[in-house]
Amino acid sequence: MSRRGILVVVSGFSGVGKGTLMKRLTEKYSQYALSVSATTRAPRKGEVDGREYFFRTKEEFEELIRNDMLIEHAEFCDNYYGTPREYVEDQMSQGRDVILEIETQGARQVCRQYPDALTLFIMPPDARTLLDRLKSRGSETEDKMESRLACAVREADCVEQYDYMIVNDDLEESVDQMHGLIESQHWLVSRNRDFAEQIRSELKVFAKGE
Amino acid sequence: MSRRGILVVVSGFSGVGKGTLMKRLTEKYSQYALSVSATTRAPRKGEVDGREYFFRTKEEFEELIRNDMLIEHAEFCDNYYGTPREYVEDQMSQGRDVILEIETQGARQVCRQYPDALTLFIMPPDARTLLDRLKSRGSETEDKMESRLACAVREADCVEQYDYMIVNDDLEESVDQMHGLIESQHWLVSRNRDFAEQIRSELKVFAKGE
Repeated sequence: MSRRGILVVVSGFSGVGKGTLMKRLTEKYSQYALSVSATTRAPRKGEVDGREYFFRTKEEFEELIRNDMLIEHAEFCDNYYGTPREYVEDQMSQGRDVILEIETQGARQVCRQYPDALTLFIMPPDARTLLDRLKSRGSETEDKMESRLACAVREADCVEQYDYMIVNDDLEESVDQMHGLIESQHWLVSRNRDFAEQIRSELKVFAKGE
Repeated sequence: MSRRGILVVVSGFSGVGKGTLMKRLTEKYSQYALSVSATTRAPRKGEVDGREYFFRTKEEFEELIRNDMLIEHAEFCDNYYGTPREYVEDQMSQGRDVILEIETQGARQVCRQYPDALTLFIMPPDARTLLDRLKSRGSETEDKMESRLACAVREADCVEQYDYMIVNDDLEESVDQMHGLIESQHWLVSRNRDFAEQIRSELKVFAKGE
């Protein structure tokens, strides 16, 4: 593949099914790489360094920040989380479209550094479906439910900062829609200026020669 | 269909195969309508009013212009050509994506009136292929060939005014690519503000009620 990969920023409500969607997308199509975050939190049982997360000490993480080696980072519950630049850049150079699942604030940070990133917001078919999905997770307490809903309301106010939405109703349809959408972005004129320039100069040669 | 259709403006070099591409697209997918131009030139044998063109007298055409019933118009070889607004609007209201094949100058006129039109430029895989296609049309004289090439060079300078390019190499692939591209545009957040607003207000109701 000679074409450069696209950075795809994906956000969406908690419970909307982002994880399942991303997993199926990468299973079904080989052109995608999921970005792997770095974190200072301890690995859980079964988690592998470089697969679920890059596990780093607090000191290592702060060095990553200092050396501008993260595209974005944030602190949650006394732990750092961030997106290593190198992995994203490597995959894009190899022609892979890199999927970065991230909340709305991190998405803004990323877009400042990658203005031509493609931004997608995953929507439920309706609010009731989202509520039911959250409830069916079972383990949710009343308190957690309330805070998730409050969070969803805040996130809903950020939808307009995204380029496209994907309505996650039927999984396979949503996966194909997402793939079609990313694929189409490769044909933006702004991503193909070299090709346009090549055709242009070839035509000029012919026009002189004929 | 409840969704509104998209206006798709298509330009491309003479000889690049736009006609064949549009024909196949509308045969293969039912969601498209080809815009029909109005003209003052006389119908040729076999041409049907409302199919190839809307045939109008000079007086009728000038009335269309006066009443702002054309999206764009131009004069070539002492004849008027233009795009009737009503047909385009009707088809879009019915949820059909309207394809408007037009040269680069007309495309600019259309975009001033429809800033959210999707603009596509059809490219050859390389300049040599375009040259061969032009030559193989046979009837081309040396003079005509020269003027077509000069025209192609001018058009090539306008590629950057378009959103996306389609490289017309394999017909079926190009048709599917074009379809995927138009389809994806329906999911622009800017085209789905009502849906986003609906989800937002539903979530707010739930957040209060829970």
